[in-house]
Parts: sequence; structure tokens; C-alpha cells
Amino acid sequence: MQKLGTYEFNIDAYSTDFRGKATLSLISNFLLQVATKHAEKRGFGYSYMNERNIAWVFSRLMIEIYEYPHNDMKIKVNTWVSDTNKFFSERSFSIENEEGKIIGYARSLWAAIDVTTRRPTNLLNLQGLADFKLEHPCPIDGMKKIFPLKDEEPLGKFTVRYSDVDINNHLNSVKYIEHFVDMFDVELFKTKDIQRFEISYQNEVRFGTRVKLYKKEEADGVFILEMRSDDCTVSSARVIWK
Amino acid sequence: MQKLGTYEFNIDAYSTDFRGKATLSLISNFLLQVATKHAEKRGFGYSYMNERNIAWVFSRLMIEIYEYPHNDMKIKVNTWVSDTNKFFSERSFSIENEEGKIIGYARSLWAAIDVTTRRPTNLLNLQGLADFKLEHPCPIDGMKKIFPLKDEEPLGKFTVRYSDVDINNHLNSVKYIEHFVDMFDVELFKTKDIQRFEISYQNEVRFGTRVKLYKKEEADGVFILEMRSDDCTVSSARVIWK
Repeated sequence: MQKLGTYEFNIDAYSTDFRGKATLSLISNFLLQVATKHAEKRGFGYSYMNERNIAWVFSRLMIEIYEYPHNDMKIKVNTWVSDTNKFFSERSFSIENEEGKIIGYARSLWAAIDVTTRRPTNLLNLQGLADFKLEHPCPIDGMKKIFPLKDEEPLGKFTVRYSDVDINNHLNSVKYIEHFVDMFDVELFKTKDIQRFEISYQNEVRFGTRVKLYKKEEADGVFILEMRSDDCTVSSARVIWK
Repeated sequence: MQKLGTYEFNIDAYSTDFRGKATLSLISNFLLQVATKHAEKRGFGYSYMNERNIAWVFSRLMIEIYEYPHNDMKIKVNTWVSDTNKFFSERSFSIENEEGKIIGYARSLWAAIDVTTRRPTNLLNLQGLADFKLEHPCPIDGMKKIFPLKDEEPLGKFTVRYSDVDINNHLNSVKYIEHFVDMFDVELFKTKDIQRFEISYQNEVRFGTRVKLYKKEEADGVFILEMRSDDCTVSSARVIWK
């Protein structure tokens, strides 16, 4: 079995944004899709884990897009396991346009938990996972610390509904990204693009949870976003516009 | 070129609902995907229309699902043009599980408008479209009239954001379905399924529009839903639970 997985997608017109460009949540959806397929084919996907009463937990995603693909374009997404240690498996991605030019990269960190105890599982015990580690270029930075916001007023809120929740009974990973991206004014998308997006998934969010959204401009074009339930911060993100 | 188009999908675990079943919006998304691909391949897709300054307008969808496909299942979606007249093109769908058993049907109505005048275009002038008409079984009823709700109080509301809007600058067709489905309590999904869903797209919804949601039980397990902007009703739906 090849260590590198390559998957093709079409950017359908009806699924793009108002500019005809793929949205960050669509691209993230592709990344999750290929992560699922790649892992499943190599024997450590959702079903394999489920049988052993463990589950993957998506912990972080860093994504950089240099040219957003637009409607009716085909793209290729490459994915591979770039590192594995006791606590985390790092999965990386590169995105190519039709000419084979790299238009984006992403890195993601995954932990695994015991479904009953909710405690982390040692990833080195996952037979075969480490064997798939591949050295392959993914020249983007890791995540710099995101300091908690303090005195900001909430800019928006939502309640977690049926469509927001995934098979693990938590807010779907792509929905976080959608809510974060929606905190920006539409006008900004007319002249700029999100060039880099970092998200840290900190706490699980369940049905009926009321979530508040916070935003602060950290530097010119660099924003820190936060999502909080009544009890805790559930996710933070850093967004860099170019 | 074959009149019938057949497309395969995998129900990825991460994209299912909390029961591990495909959501109605995921299935609707597949329908739109195959509609797009089928039309594009046969020369009357988004790009062809766009070059002629016309656009498809999704008008109605009726969908029946007898067995919701669950995570890690493969399904096939068949689509064909079932009728075409001056004003509407009817596109039908059938959905098969891995054993080739039909688990659902859908029918959709599409109009075309001149992008500049926003007036309907005669579909019989669309070269070749009528030639693709195919007689193929889709034994589900058309839509019965949905009478406007009157005295109900709004049950929810939302503001149309960046991620809600498609390439035509309107609320994405699948998002309507998501918002409608989210009006039901999660508890209902634990014992029942939406067996039939009908939606009528009445008015375009744009960025920043504030939308209110209304619901009424018309008969046992049959609900009428309505989405209204400050000015008008933008969409209605009938949902039948079984």
C-alpha cells in the first residue's frame, strides 16, 4: 500500500462562494474526506477504531491557500502521515491545481481517545500506523500559541442543532470553520482572501449548547477568534488575510 | 451520450448525523452534485448557461427516503431529465444501496432566468435539452399545495452570512434544507426518520437578510415549515416523519 494518497475533486459551481471560489470549509471538508479514506484504506479508519472502542479526535488544523480554486476546476489533494508519537499523529496535505502547481498545504494533528474513559490512547500501540510515516514536503509553519481573549464582547452566537453534530455526538469539525469564517464581513472577501487559517479544537460541543463568538485583530490582517460555551473555550483560531 | 447518469458516493463517517445516518442535506447535496455533473456533461450546465447570460433556478424538490444510508455505505444516485416544457425542466433521481435496492427517489423542478432581466427564459430554446428526456420510473407524488401559515410565532431566526451564499449571490439551496431540518427537536431523530421532504424555493435571499422560521403540524407527523424575510415568504416545506 502506497504511503501517499491522492484524491481528485471537482469544484462544483453550486458549492462555491459568491466569488465562484471554493470556500475554506469546502476545502477542509475535502481534507477530512481524504483523511478518512486514506486511513480507512490503510486499516486505521473510523470503523477499525470503533471496533476497538477508540476514536480519532481532531485536534488542530493549519491550512494555507495561495490560490483558491474556482468553479469547474479540478484539484488533487495529496495526504500522508507525516509524524506519529505517543499522543499525536500528524497528517499533512498538499493541494494541486490542474497544471500540477501546488496551491495550498495543510497540516493536522490527531489524538485518539478511549471512547468509554475519554482518556488519550497511546498511538504507538496502533498496529502499523507508524509504518505509514512518510517524508514529503509540507513547508508551512506549525501553530504559534493563541493567547485567550479577555475583554472582548461576543460578536455572535448560535445554538448547536441536529445538522451541526457528527457521529461522535459533537459539533462537526467543519462547522467550527464555517462559523469562524462567517464572523468576517462579506466586503472583506471582495478584495482579500484568507491565506492562512489555524484552528485548535479544545473542548467538545454537544447538542443544545449555546456558543458565543469572539474576535480580535492581533496585527494588521491577523485575527484571533474564539468560540466559548457557558463553561469554557471550545475552540480558537488565527486567521491571516492577504 | 447516455440519458441516464449514475454516480457513486461513499457515506463518510464524519459527514453523517449522530446516528451514523446520512443527513437529508448531505443527500440533497449529492443530488445537486449529480444534477450539476449530468447537465454539464450533456452541454447545459452552469458554464454553458453562464456564457449565454442565463442561469438555472432551482424551484422545487420532493424527496422520499425509505432507508437512510449509514456510515461507510456506498450508494448510487441515478439522475435523468424526466420532462421539459417552456417554463420548467423536471429532473428525477433514484438512490440505490450497495445491493442495488432502491432506498429513495426525488424529483426536482428547475426554471431558467435571464441573469440581467431576472425574467424566465423559454427552456425549449435550450438546444438539445429536450432530447435528453427519458422515461424512467420515479413513483413519487408531486407537491401538494402548501398553504401559507398565518398566526404562528417565529421559532427561530438567522442572518445570511458568507458561508450561506452561493455563486449566484443567493442563499445556497442546501442551506434552506439544513435550516428547516434543524427546526425539529433532536429527540425526534432518535425514534423516527424524515420519510418525505418537499421544498419550494420562492424568493431569493441575499447577504445580511434576516430570516425567521415558522412551523405548524398539519396532521400527525406532517409539518409545514416556512422561512420569511422582513418582506416576504422565501421558502416553504412539508416534512413527513415516519
